[in-house]
Amino acid sequence: MRWIIEALEKVREKRPLVHNITNYVVMNTTANALLAIGASPVMAHAIEELEEMVALANTLVINIGTLDEHKIYSMMKAVKTAKDLKKPVILDPVGAGATKLRTKTSLRILEAGEISVIRGNFGEIAALLGEHGKTRGVDSAVYDEQVAKKLARDASKEFNTVVAVTGPVDYVSDGEKVYAIENGTPLLGRVTGTGCMATAIIGAFLAVEDPLKATIAGLISFEIAAEKAFEDSPYPGTFHTKLYDWLYRIDGDLIMKRAKVKEVEL
Amino acid sequence: MRWIIEALEKVREKRPLVHNITNYVVMNTTANALLAIGASPVMAHAIEELEEMVALANTLVINIGTLDEHKIYSMMKAVKTAKDLKKPVILDPVGAGATKLRTKTSLRILEAGEISVIRGNFGEIAALLGEHGKTRGVDSAVYDEQVAKKLARDASKEFNTVVAVTGPVDYVSDGEKVYAIENGTPLLGRVTGTGCMATAIIGAFLAVEDPLKATIAGLISFEIAAEKAFEDSPYPGTFHTKLYDWLYRIDGDLIMKRAKVKEVEL
Amino acid sequence: MRWIIEALEKVREKRPLVHNITNYVVMNTTANALLAIGASPVMAHAIEELEEMVALANTLVINIGTLDEHKIYSMMKAVKTAKDLKKPVILDPVGAGATKLRTKTSLRILEAGEISVIRGNFGEIAALLGEHGKTRGVDSAVYDEQVAKKLARDASKEFNTVVAVTGPVDYVSDGEKVYAIENGTPLLGRVTGTGCMATAIIGAFLAVEDPLKATIAGLISFEIAAEKAFEDSPYPGTFHTKLYDWLYRIDGDLIMKRAKVKEVEL
Repeated sequence: MRWIIEALEKVREKRPLVHNITNYVVMNTTANALLAIGASPVMAHAIEELEEMVALANTLVINIGTLDEHKIYSMMKAVKTAKDLKKPVILDPVGAGATKLRTKTSLRILEAGEISVIRGNFGEIAALLGEHGKTRGVDSAVYDEQVAKKLARDASKEFNTVVAVTGPVDYVSDGEKVYAIENGTPLLGRVTGTGCMATAIIGAFLAVEDPLKATIAGLISFEIAAEKAFEDSPYPGTFHTKLYDWLYRIDGDLIMKRAKVKEVEL
Repeated sequence: MRWIIEALEKVREKRPLVHNITNYVVMNTTANALLAIGASPVMAHAIEELEEMVALANTLVINIGTLDEHKIYSMMKAVKTAKDLKKPVILDPVGAGATKLRTKTSLRILEAGEISVIRGNFGEIAALLGEHGKTRGVDSAVYDEQVAKKLARDASKEFNTVVAVTGPVDYVSDGEKVYAIENGTPLLGRVTGTGCMATAIIGAFLAVEDPLKATIAGLISFEIAAEKAFEDSPYPGTFHTKLYDWLYRIDGDLIMKRAKVKEVEL
Repeated sequence: MRWIIEALEKVREKRPLVHNITNYVVMNTTANALLAIGASPVMAHAIEELEEMVALANTLVINIGTLDEHKIYSMMKAVKTAKDLKKPVILDPVGAGATKLRTKTSLRILEAGEISVIRGNFGEIAALLGEHGKTRGVDSAVYDEQVAKKLARDASKEFNTVVAVTGPVDYVSDGEKVYAIENGTPLLGRVTGTGCMATAIIGAFLAVEDPLKATIAGLISFEIAAEKAFEDSPYPGTFHTKLYDWLYRIDGDLIMKRAKVKEVEL
């Protein structure tokens, strides 16, 4: 786990500027999660300043919740700029599969940009793959460990990115290997935007590590913080508050004792 | 109070999908309130996905804070779709009476859709009724129990919906009877968006009960949670955090002991 | 310090209506900060209701984070209306210097309106002055007490407003004198939007005091609350929650014991 601890230390030293084009629901909370872990967030979507902001930032986080046509236009421009400037980008396809707009916008972003990581839940990643001509029908399936594992690997191959399918167990794949992460707490599901926070935190790690390592280190750091917050309080309001405390407090010792990641077979 | 407890249990079993077209100030906090009580929130206003989202959702919450022309257009389309699909809708006319735009937008929504419940404060409901040709002048009146009571009944008759006029005492009417609810705490007034949260929570109950019962059960559940949060802390930051804890923790026992609702005479 | 205490008491008596055209990241948290200290926030940017809202409000807060063209248009109209109606306005030039759009929008607002106070960090205020033909190059400088002091004075003269350059020490100038405020805690930097909250709270004090006094009283009240919150918790999540508690609890006794403001020489 030494490399995860080092990655966290690098985030805190570098204080990467993480540019978020994200949904209105989570702007405040993802900014706070990034600040707590030691990164520096900026939220900006005006088309007139996008190129400058992408150039200033170390990494770009694209989150498609609360879409509208202006935002889609900004997202497209931002991912193209990031591609030109070789900045890492993580995509959170919030609600892909729920509406055609969300599925299609995610796919357009994947085509237009050079996306380093996609993080989504089972249904979202399945929807992306389904719309892309593969595994149609999976998107309506109930979460299943065996399918989730394979989904991470297949989506990774299909979109040529690292893919994280998060859920009770998270599966992360670079298209070859698949890793399982078993940290976290179900109470995360009772606070809005915790998936978006995880995405943003991976975004911070992308400034200091390759996509596969950034994804694993980001998810583990976030989820161990959540475990500690849950030990402080099993109720969602206080848990949410404590989650920022623990993103700030998480350290090598906690990671060493708690990180549960292993390579798994398909 | 047995039926209130059962309604809460039904919300937690069904986990209704509550579609919110709401203001930017409260998107995060109403989503968290809905998650805490056991519902499933979605925030979406893009015109391109509205019909699909309304179709997926169990109920629709329309909140007119931070309006703009795109959002008004989306709200109009959403309430028409909900009418066609017979989905219950609750309207929160935030700031009606403060500006013409807000009063008129509320009235347009009431005309275009089939609204199940309106929840607002005294001034907001009075403004709606005033603009509609009735009780003009009331909107500038100071809160008065006797007038609030009548206002709930009159607005309910006028708009053919259940109306909740919330304040120190809440009055809920279906046009025939009027009920008074005496739960809650004045500290709710020191946290932004608590009225919007109450509206959203009624929205969750609309998925499992008729409009009158959903309104009473939603308000009582929310306000008892607020009482418990206030007992934990009389200061607004901690109170706000604890409010989510208690929306999560509220149970039949608390409702049985604390619910204060009764029918009142005009 | 007697006048600061009186200013706070006046805010709590008057409960001024503070109209915010602000960024999406901080809408909820600045509203809560205003409510906690005893003011009454309204967030509104629809062009159709701006004039009415500015007329209703006691003061106007303009914050340029998360700009877009509609918002810029609304901000311009709002500051012109405020000028006509002689309502005090405070500008927070969030991110000026980071992108041309932000620097230019700030300068356009300064030209179009009659701005009472500008509150920004070192880089932001330096950028405004740099773009205005003065002290070019300062905007890339590292924070320096001596320069910050002079910056507050020069910007105040240039824009004919009170200017607060906030940082480890805050410098406030009316173009003649410069005051240093040494309250606060670095942990404020780990919670998003705390600068925006400070701006909004100065906005509340502008309803009861002249711009210089409102700025000093607002900053001191906010920063003493932050000191107390930090004493309750050195971790950002809990600190953030406690900040609202202490904005609500701050009183004459705390101000008397803790306020650190003095006039300084250039």
